[in-house]
Amino acid sequence: MRIDIITVLPELLKSPFEASILKRAIEKGLVEVHFHNLRDYTDKSYNQVDDYQFGGGAGMVLMIEPIDKCITALKASRTYDEIIYMTPDGETLNQKMANGMSLLKNVIILCGHYKGVDQRVRDTLITREISIGDYVLSGGELGAAILCDTVIRLIPGVLNNETSALTDTFQDNLLAPPVYTRPSEYKGMKVPEVLLSGNFPKIEKWREDQAMERTEKLRPDLLG
Amino acid sequence: MRIDIITVLPELLKSPFEASILKRAIEKGLVEVHFHNLRDYTDKSYNQVDDYQFGGGAGMVLMIEPIDKCITALKASRTYDEIIYMTPDGETLNQKMANGMSLLKNVIILCGHYKGVDQRVRDTLITREISIGDYVLSGGELGAAILCDTVIRLIPGVLNNETSALTDTFQDNLLAPPVYTRPSEYKGMKVPEVLLSGNFPKIEKWREDQAMERTEKLRPDLLG
Repeated sequence: MRIDIITVLPELLKSPFEASILKRAIEKGLVEVHFHNLRDYTDKSYNQVDDYQFGGGAGMVLMIEPIDKCITALKASRTYDEIIYMTPDGETLNQKMANGMSLLKNVIILCGHYKGVDQRVRDTLITREISIGDYVLSGGELGAAILCDTVIRLIPGVLNNETSALTDTFQDNLLAPPVYTRPSEYKGMKVPEVLLSGNFPKIEKWREDQAMERTEKLRPDLLG
Repeated sequence: MRIDIITVLPELLKSPFEASILKRAIEKGLVEVHFHNLRDYTDKSYNQVDDYQFGGGAGMVLMIEPIDKCITALKASRTYDEIIYMTPDGETLNQKMANGMSLLKNVIILCGHYKGVDQRVRDTLITREISIGDYVLSGGELGAAILCDTVIRLIPGVLNNETSALTDTFQDNLLAPPVYTRPSEYKGMKVPEVLLSGNFPKIEKWREDQAMERTEKLRPDLLG
């Protein structure tokens, strides 16, 4: 998979892609991530890429011209499955969407900043608008990092143990059961005995019950 | 506001806090963010902080002991309003929660990693569990960065123009209206005439109509 991220703040995105699972996926050659600084695609003075909004009001808006130039340059080299704009009024990301997106080949992610992008970008250049949740961020960069993380970890070979992703919360519309590790007793608090029993069918049953109970209590909406 | 982030990957969190609005807020002294490497709180060999889960199964679990030690050390120096654990089965973050949290003084954020933390941590040390959305990340670090970003930008004085946050999507349960900036015509695509009219009451009315229309179309659930 190849991901091209268009941003005014490539430096903000640096460390998440240089650590942990994203780093390993890139090193293994399972994914390529390229950052494109929008300021390289403007011919205005001071590398200007934003301007005041028409009609007045607080906050700057990213201009269509540099975005159009950047996307056009990328499209000249390959075909993209999706050109995504990260925005709080987009389709809300969930695990099912992440599963689907992990199968794509080439993706562009455009990060908004300030008050967003000129609406004409959204109307004509973008194929999909995604929100990571009902809250406002100072820019689309962290949203893009979240989207990349959820999707990239699902690409086969990225996680050391593939079954690890399959037993995650949401993969079966259930929250994950509680987990425990050593020591079996800490300051008087004990691990549930069943987990130490070695009786695997019983453990499996306990986990299923716990997952169901937790989902019913915390997120009944997931059970539909 | 003071935020203490407990993590096994402090290096992952570096760049988001060294750029843009988070950086400015820290430089202005409006917020203090401290990273605590969980590995500094273990006396096991190789700085071990995780172990296999009891009962078998894929994925490692963060142990209670180093987490308890780290939280206890922090609590010895000040009182915390919340000790938050980032987890996909927590309460889903929204703008209203972010607004409330922007008033807190001292907050600890614990980032899970791998398969999560020992359940006894959640039962006894954590005061609030927060999810940024219905998807699984490779760790809680990016979730913590998202939480910090949504909350910190709401602290008065952080954004240059305070009205900018108040007109954001979600602040009034409506999606934001479309925005446009220069040029007024680009490859034949024009900005809606009303925005160029200079008639501010009319512009205001247009924006309200657009916000309502967009919300009804894309997110009728927000209108409740």
